[in-house]
Amino acid sequence: MQWTKVLGLGLGAAALLGLGIILGHFAIPKKSNSPAPSISAPQDLDLEILETVMGQLDAHRIRENLRELSREPHLASSPRDEDLVQLLLQRWKDPESGLDSAEAFTYEVLLSFPSQEQPNVVDIVGPTGDIIHSCHRTEENVTGEQGGADVIQPHAAYAPSGTPQGLLVYANHGTEEDFKELQTQGIKLEGTIALTRYGGVGRGDKAVNAAKHGVAGVLVYTDPADINDGLSSPSETFPNSWYLPPSGVERGSYYKYFGDPLTPYLPATPSSFRLDLANVSGFPPIPTQPIGFQDARDLLCQVNVSVYNLLELRNSSNVLGIIHGAVEPDRYVLYGNHRDSWVHGAVDPSSGTAVLLELSRVLGTLLKKGTWRPRRSIVFASWGAEEFGLIGSTEFTEEFFNKLQERTVAYINVDIAVFANATLRVQGTPPVQSVVFSATKEIRSPGPGDLSIYDNWIRYFNRSSPVYGLVPSLGSLGAGSDYAPFIHFLGISSMDIAYTYDQSKTSARIYPTYHTAFDTFDYVDKFLDPGFSSHQAVARTAGSIILRLSDSFFLPLKVSDYSETLRSFLQAAQQDLGALLEQHSISLGPLVTAVEKFEAEAAALGQRISTLQKGSPDPLQVRMLNDQLMLLERSFLNPRAFPEERYYSHVLWAARTGSVATFPGLSNACSRAMDTASGSEAWAEVQRQLSIVVTALEGAAATLRPVADL
Amino acid sequence: MQWTKVLGLGLGAAALLGLGIILGHFAIPKKSNSPAPSISAPQDLDLEILETVMGQLDAHRIRENLRELSREPHLASSPRDEDLVQLLLQRWKDPESGLDSAEAFTYEVLLSFPSQEQPNVVDIVGPTGDIIHSCHRTEENVTGEQGGADVIQPHAAYAPSGTPQGLLVYANHGTEEDFKELQTQGIKLEGTIALTRYGGVGRGDKAVNAAKHGVAGVLVYTDPADINDGLSSPSETFPNSWYLPPSGVERGSYYKYFGDPLTPYLPATPSSFRLDLANVSGFPPIPTQPIGFQDARDLLCQVNVSVYNLLELRNSSNVLGIIHGAVEPDRYVLYGNHRDSWVHGAVDPSSGTAVLLELSRVLGTLLKKGTWRPRRSIVFASWGAEEFGLIGSTEFTEEFFNKLQERTVAYINVDIAVFANATLRVQGTPPVQSVVFSATKEIRSPGPGDLSIYDNWIRYFNRSSPVYGLVPSLGSLGAGSDYAPFIHFLGISSMDIAYTYDQSKTSARIYPTYHTAFDTFDYVDKFLDPGFSSHQAVARTAGSIILRLSDSFFLPLKVSDYSETLRSFLQAAQQDLGALLEQHSISLGPLVTAVEKFEAEAAALGQRISTLQKGSPDPLQVRMLNDQLMLLERSFLNPRAFPEERYYSHVLWAARTGSVATFPGLSNACSRAMDTASGSEAWAEVQRQLSIVVTALEGAAATLRPVADL
Repeated sequence: MQWTKVLGLGLGAAALLGLGIILGHFAIPKKSNSPAPSISAPQDLDLEILETVMGQLDAHRIRENLRELSREPHLASSPRDEDLVQLLLQRWKDPESGLDSAEAFTYEVLLSFPSQEQPNVVDIVGPTGDIIHSCHRTEENVTGEQGGADVIQPHAAYAPSGTPQGLLVYANHGTEEDFKELQTQGIKLEGTIALTRYGGVGRGDKAVNAAKHGVAGVLVYTDPADINDGLSSPSETFPNSWYLPPSGVERGSYYKYFGDPLTPYLPATPSSFRLDLANVSGFPPIPTQPIGFQDARDLLCQVNVSVYNLLELRNSSNVLGIIHGAVEPDRYVLYGNHRDSWVHGAVDPSSGTAVLLELSRVLGTLLKKGTWRPRRSIVFASWGAEEFGLIGSTEFTEEFFNKLQERTVAYINVDIAVFANATLRVQGTPPVQSVVFSATKEIRSPGPGDLSIYDNWIRYFNRSSPVYGLVPSLGSLGAGSDYAPFIHFLGISSMDIAYTYDQSKTSARIYPTYHTAFDTFDYVDKFLDPGFSSHQAVARTAGSIILRLSDSFFLPLKVSDYSETLRSFLQAAQQDLGALLEQHSISLGPLVTAVEKFEAEAAALGQRISTLQKGSPDPLQVRMLNDQLMLLERSFLNPRAFPEERYYSHVLWAARTGSVATFPGLSNACSRAMDTASGSEAWAEVQRQLSIVVTALEGAAATLRPVADL
Repeated sequence: MQWTKVLGLGLGAAALLGLGIILGHFAIPKKSNSPAPSISAPQDLDLEILETVMGQLDAHRIRENLRELSREPHLASSPRDEDLVQLLLQRWKDPESGLDSAEAFTYEVLLSFPSQEQPNVVDIVGPTGDIIHSCHRTEENVTGEQGGADVIQPHAAYAPSGTPQGLLVYANHGTEEDFKELQTQGIKLEGTIALTRYGGVGRGDKAVNAAKHGVAGVLVYTDPADINDGLSSPSETFPNSWYLPPSGVERGSYYKYFGDPLTPYLPATPSSFRLDLANVSGFPPIPTQPIGFQDARDLLCQVNVSVYNLLELRNSSNVLGIIHGAVEPDRYVLYGNHRDSWVHGAVDPSSGTAVLLELSRVLGTLLKKGTWRPRRSIVFASWGAEEFGLIGSTEFTEEFFNKLQERTVAYINVDIAVFANATLRVQGTPPVQSVVFSATKEIRSPGPGDLSIYDNWIRYFNRSSPVYGLVPSLGSLGAGSDYAPFIHFLGISSMDIAYTYDQSKTSARIYPTYHTAFDTFDYVDKFLDPGFSSHQAVARTAGSIILRLSDSFFLPLKVSDYSETLRSFLQAAQQDLGALLEQHSISLGPLVTAVEKFEAEAAALGQRISTLQKGSPDPLQVRMLNDQLMLLERSFLNPRAFPEERYYSHVLWAARTGSVATFPGLSNACSRAMDTASGSEAWAEVQRQLSIVVTALEGAAATLRPVADL
């Protein structure tokens, strides 16, 4: 999981969805099992099957999956990564519990590794050039698992090699503001080594910002205040608690975009055109190295940084498995997680893969027994090389763009299944809210008491919806995991599901051993989820969502829940930008009209669905309606809206740098135009962005009208 | 119809389609009329209805439509244009013969007109500056129809105003080569007035090329050799023959792109963002004026050109009418033509509109009687402001992009219905070939004898297909009429249908009075199609195609006919570029594999269709298969393939400037790279374009596989 990118768009950001009690609305018949239903049968969600699946998802088996998956480090493209490809293929081709078919798809992608011959080095040098102190080159072997040859030395993937030497300057998060502040204080930055801490901005941004001020090298450390609730001694950290040991170093990709860096918009097949390295953009401009807080504390004065990272073309595979739909095989419910980890990756990503394997086992068993076959197809995916920048999933969307865009009902991502065991946490686009609510109301929450996952969740993350009252709040999707290409590049309704911690009890930026050699099976088994009941809760939630999406006669995507989002974006625009726009003679009137039109059409469509459900609707009629629901999200895509933002085409969820929580194109354009005169190019861009979003909303509303209308 | 743009891509270009005897394949049941069929009924094409429609399409009514439509000049946005909007609405809302609904959609678009106060002037000046001769400001009033106030003065639409004066230089077609040749001959071009003739390149290109050499102004005339088979005297021309009178001047748009110039990619609604005029690209850079050959002949030495064109924001409307589909109302068969003309426009476009109105009358009457309702929806469109650059149709596709792209089965364009009465002429993408063949085999050709339209057509335009043997050849679609945004921007299978002349009997570039004040009802009635039997033949052809597309249970789009095109593109690449590419270490291997994969998948899909047709397939199953057929063309779209080419996203049919008749991106990139060294940016672009087309073909093949396969 790429965590830093989530920050700007995470849970705190506009989470303005609504509650749809789909289960009540959609009369779900109890019907006998029919392994080979007539093709046109109005086959619907079978509550008995749902109950069976919920019952069979086994915490112990998830635990055993995790033990096996995290037994060895399995860095992308490593031999162990390839072993896991085979493990997945074997499980998915199992005659008793496998899927209809499974296949590995291999790409040749550019990865970045520390040199094995010449380790990256950070030294403190004395006034005469002598080395006073050397930072740890590896993490301390605390549990016997940190010492193996396949534990990759911490490095900043894709940072260039180089051996800068200079005075150390502490630069906080390494944001633009941080460096400006140092400059204001009269601190000379030219030729220095900037010490920064993780957080605040994306990993690679720290080097980009630093280089603008002439900084020669960047160090990035994990601050105990950000990750360990301030604790830092060995006795207070793993294996004595879930906190990060002093030698722990967060690895990560420092690449700005996602996908294979050499083949933007093209699948990284061996024959594909590859950019010349000189033409690749998005790599950090200066040598960068991550370190632990133990070393960060000891750094002084003059520092010597030697980075010997190597770029290599490597094979990396996705594994895809499918259960063919009985009635609408051309509609795909896509469920995925990445497989590669930085080291053992018990939490990131194996907790998700352990859940994935248990889900596919239970569904595969029902399938092979002839008890059940879904109405629509279910596709399971194990992505490669996510840690280097969502590479496997991105290449997959590039290779099968049209097929996926035309046929995918929704994408469900479970990467880190369990950050901690307090509560569910879901990020997703508005149409998926209702199916998540329906599923979680019917599943018991782990832990004491008899709460549903939903009722537990609402205690931790909630908001007051104008439509539904108090409901759990969904976060919005950034680019932190493999859902990014699906939502931003293809416009497919997506969600990311996990169990996480109680934010009132810890201020940890993420679970403390994230991307370090301490993220191991024992860590999960002892501290994160003893008993694996949170893993089971995530498996049940995801399983119920998969079944509801694949088996419901009417697709449980509630498009009218977009109205709340649009209304809140509109209100933010009016309140926070209205006066400014007016000064520049820009009217929000057309946007108001477009939002109103969307609201009206979405509500009318909801009415037509209700009416249809009361009758005995024809399967073809329901298919046409479902197509409207499935394809709504595509209406918000405009590949020409943000030509500079690679892959980002969704006019509602593109990255927002502007401070107002409104339509991102408008927000970003306004913050750039703010200090320019009326009539500037920047203000023209504000108007263009306004027209782009108005056109998207009007176009979306047009797709919701009765299909025979003009 | 914008003719010049067709030249590069017209009939002569790769017309490599194949013949599918769809009628034989698809068992079409004769069934009783059922005005309200059960929603899921496998309703299929009804041959009795088809016969009824063929019988009722009335040549006399088409003639009367044309008389009314061409009674007055009806320039885009003129009062008469608005009258015709009302006429269309009235016809389509008629209780006896109207459609289910009809509506006008109005845009505010930038048009260009000659000033009414200050006419454009071309004068020959003597050595002392005195005016020796003035060119005609208007065409001669030959039939009493050329004198009205609403006959727009000939002008080069969107050419800038200005009053250049200089020595006259004859520059042939005004191509880049023409100006280079003049330069080679030592002729000073700086400050001259270039006299060019229509043809060779697009209208606006002449001024673009001229300006690069410092030319101050451009005149464009119609050469009798190009349009009149060399004839030029009044006794030999209209009204004594179909040839252009000496004073006739071809009007036209000189804008490089299409759509409203101020709102690229956005619908030109009143509130849409509009480019500042300074930021508009694609207008001719220097004053330009079209003249007749009478004046061209008399031009001498020093010439004075005064252009006073004005740009104006005007309202222009599309009229849309719909017949709701009974079974699959969310599938649209879209049939359209533009309504606006330069003057009376009897041929261009009223011949097409006359056919449109007759078709809608016949289908509307069956509908209102309750005799028939199509399986899918049929949408009739009358586009506004085509002559200025396909503006109405383009704005429509911008406004309803997703809705149209997701649901449109095919777009059928009939602009100029009859150029002359010798033979059918069709341009289209490969999947439509078979339905055109099926339709035309069943309709009698006008004229003596008992030939079908198909059998007559094959005598004029034919080719030897590796799959089918000798078949009529379809031309490929350029950007000559309103099909352009549908095929290039949206990736919708499209066709353009007309009757035309025997190319062995005339070398006319187009019908001689094209875009002049002599394109009148009498011209059509006397010379082009006395008796209107060719109009009727076009109406029947279009009508049969519409019914087959809207009523057939299995969509009559034969995607395997793309294989022939791809194979021929591949062969051209191998033969004409193979050696060159090899020199630069670029392999065509991946392209060969991709074409083979497409061929195999398309053939396998064809097999599955045949098998399915033998059984009694379920409507939902057929729908899924039809979706594969309908959406294939979308797989060839890549909005990032040609970022400089506005709207052109179709990787197979984008404009080809390179000389090799192969994939346009490859051809164009090769001709740019040709003279550069290996390793240049230009050769990298060749590789990128190769990967783009390989990815598109592989992606397309993936959509043709059984839908449940990975």
